Amino acid sequence: MESNRGGMNGKSIKMIKALLSALLVLVAVSSAFGKYIPKTGKRIPQTLSRGWGDQLIWAQTYEEGLYWSRSRNKPLMIVFHLADCPHSAALKKVITEDNDIQKRLDEDFIILNLMYETTDKHLSPDGQYVPRILFVDPSMTVRADINGRYRNRLYAYEPADLTLLKTNMDAAKKLLKSEL
Amino acid sequence: MESNRGGMNGKSIKMIKALLSALLVLVAVSSAFGKYIPKTGKRIPQTLSRGWGDQLIWAQTYEEGLYWSRSRNKPLMIVFHLADCPHSAALKKVITEDNDIQKRLDEDFIILNLMYETTDKHLSPDGQYVPRILFVDPSMTVRADINGRYRNRLYAYEPADLTLLKTNMDAAKKLLKSEL
Repeated sequence: MESNRGGMNGKSIKMIKALLSALLVLVAVSSAFGKYIPKTGKRIPQTLSRGWGDQLIWAQTYEEGLYWSRSRNKPLMIVFHLADCPHSAALKKVITEDNDIQKRLDEDFIILNLMYETTDKHLSPDGQYVPRILFVDPSMTVRADINGRYRNRLYAYEPADLTLLKTNMDAAKKLLKSEL
Repeated sequence: MESNRGGMNGKSIKMIKALLSALLVLVAVSSAFGKYIPKTGKRIPQTLSRGWGDQLIWAQTYEEGLYWSRSRNKPLMIVFHLADCPHSAALKKVITEDNDIQKRLDEDFIILNLMYETTDKHLSPDGQYVPRILFVDPSMTVRADINGRYRNRLYAYEPADLTLLKTNMDAAKKLLKSEL
């Protein structure tokens, strides 16, 4: 009697367990069937990082980057790159593998990576090429004064320029005086 | 002699296997240790879909959307939304759960979802609000003529407006004649 009043006997526990697992299978099956799958097969969702640091929080657009830069008073770093450019890929590799840079980008910068140029001419002071890194001050001034080491492509960086990039990140962190 | 000349004996195979597995463990450990992890803990990488259809291919910016629209001769559909807006969330739910819409978006449209306004005034013909859906013809004309059913917010849609949205998608697919 005790087991029928307060608890359950072995048989009913088994039945409930069986029902529950049947239900779980049904839910799993229906949710898998229900979702849209492209003709060409399932795709891996695109990330905003595009491989430049999956653990970092990326702005989606220049407008979003400017907004966060101003409201959080952090400089914006923009990387222009292309998927099929070996120089972009080489720079991406060293930047993602350098924990010091990843940490600084995460904590001290608003970051944006773009594969398409914006309409803003200020972001291509000496032309449109990739890879190219521009810094923007929270006052919305493009820091055209912060350059890499190539005179013909002032904002280009190569994998060997990581130390210079860090120096330039430090320079960008020294914010311009805003006019009051 | 045979086994020492061409192949390997049991002992050396065992040794190589042990060495290989030790190497594999080392590689796995070092790569796990090596990656940057934010102070606040590991993050789930942001997706470009922002939950509006993980299987679809999203443009990142308006410039990218316009480029794909022109080069593939497909209309561009832009969804303006906000993360903490219940109306956006409700619309997102019905759009992602409707396989017909997901399929059409995947096959017939270039798609873009934005949480920040662009500087282009043409994308806010009657103001900036969310959720708001605008179509752009491959000729780069914003289809301000394709409206939802609210007179005070011409480009707003509610979950109950899915049929109207599909009708409007059909209208957007009838491309404007480009001037030749």
